Amino acid sequence: MRRERRIKLLVAYNGTRYHGWQVQPRTATVQGALETCLSRITNSTVRLHGAGRTDAGVHALAQVAHFDTTSGIDASSLVRGLNGLLSGDIAVRRAVDVSPDFHSRYDAAGKTYVYQIHNHGVPSALHAPFAWHVPQGLDVPAMQEAARMLLGRHDFSAFRGAARFDTRRPVRFLYRLSLRKRSTRLFFVISADGFLYRMARSIVGTLVAIGRGAVPAEAIADMLRTGHRQLAGPTAPAHGLFLAHVSYRRSNIEVRLRK
Amino acid sequence: MRRERRIKLLVAYNGTRYHGWQVQPRTATVQGALETCLSRITNSTVRLHGAGRTDAGVHALAQVAHFDTTSGIDASSLVRGLNGLLSGDIAVRRAVDVSPDFHSRYDAAGKTYVYQIHNHGVPSALHAPFAWHVPQGLDVPAMQEAARMLLGRHDFSAFRGAARFDTRRPVRFLYRLSLRKRSTRLFFVISADGFLYRMARSIVGTLVAIGRGAVPAEAIADMLRTGHRQLAGPTAPAHGLFLAHVSYRRSNIEVRLRK
Repeated sequence: MRRERRIKLLVAYNGTRYHGWQVQPRTATVQGALETCLSRITNSTVRLHGAGRTDAGVHALAQVAHFDTTSGIDASSLVRGLNGLLSGDIAVRRAVDVSPDFHSRYDAAGKTYVYQIHNHGVPSALHAPFAWHVPQGLDVPAMQEAARMLLGRHDFSAFRGAARFDTRRPVRFLYRLSLRKRSTRLFFVISADGFLYRMARSIVGTLVAIGRGAVPAEAIADMLRTGHRQLAGPTAPAHGLFLAHVSYRRSNIEVRLRK
Repeated sequence: MRRERRIKLLVAYNGTRYHGWQVQPRTATVQGALETCLSRITNSTVRLHGAGRTDAGVHALAQVAHFDTTSGIDASSLVRGLNGLLSGDIAVRRAVDVSPDFHSRYDAAGKTYVYQIHNHGVPSALHAPFAWHVPQGLDVPAMQEAARMLLGRHDFSAFRGAARFDTRRPVRFLYRLSLRKRSTRLFFVISADGFLYRMARSIVGTLVAIGRGAVPAEAIADMLRTGHRQLAGPTAPAHGLFLAHVSYRRSNIEVRLRK
């Protein structure tokens, strides 16, 4: 019997067809699709552990996951084999042997999400699967001012979805929140040491409400102080959100804001 | 009874779910989807004329089409109404009243296609619907040399698909064929006064065969001279191709090549 190894995967996916990352019975999930292919390749049941659950319709540029196996397959053959079996909307970018101590979720020191908005009166047929269509004009400087107020360590209760994991502490350290407009598209980059349920999408929805003039930028202070969800804006739709990076070095975390 | 008007539409679409532009019974086509919505909005049967038929799976950034109607609807209400009725993968970018002499197809002086390749050993989950995945390394300078040989007025018989319209003259004026590599993606821009059936995809497939070293760049001369399809490379897949522009001014056509 071969020795057990722990392998870390870097995975990109188009979340359109999936009911999120996490395995559920009788529905297509990213974790489920990967576990099925991994089990075929290694000839044994594989349980995959992701750095974080992404919701139905959310995409990933670089989800991180790990699994244990006694298979002797080399990492590059594993990548080729997985990409050969997977349908085109999930791609394994890298596989690497890691220490058996490594845990994709518990060791994650930070995560970065990117959110894309198509901001134009006319919808975009080609960006539609990957961007929220906001036809109204947006006051980007007001959104940037609000973004600066969100930076730092706060109780983000006002920016969490319907209480699914309400036992978790609601304090998170938001160390990056940038907004950039490029032609008709608006990109948000959001980094924190952890995210509450739907926190990234709640932040985007609130900043858009501010950009539309429905909520004043200064209201951010009240949201952070009171934790009242109804003060914040609606949750932005899933299909504009990408899990872009998971970091594993606490020392690399810096507070920064790019305009 | 109102006077008849002719309206020109600029349309973008993600071709993934459609069996091409042209109406066919009992299948989803872009023309069919647009005609259904136009007929609902104008309360009468509308027949739409496109600048060119795109194949199943081919996308468009700016297809041009026209139709006649006696409806008095203003152009911006028409755009909003259409985009409200259409599913997200077709978007009407603009509507404008034109002279009853204008014909989207007969008056087209040139068309530009863009073709996208994802050139990396690992597939891309997010570019998959819009780019051909070519995992092998490609000799881009050899492809550019071959592209230069294709420029100009030639008999493109070697670069046409299975003879569907074999009565048409096979001489076309290719006035732009550029190749640009940006990170893992390779973009082709292909402009001609007209395209034979699958000509853009045959050119891309042939240049990729040259880039792989399967065919020498100099073989282009034989292909153009003999018109033998079997000398050229395979037809590149539909999902990397975008109809990017239809031009209506013969005077704007210039011969140029960008590297």
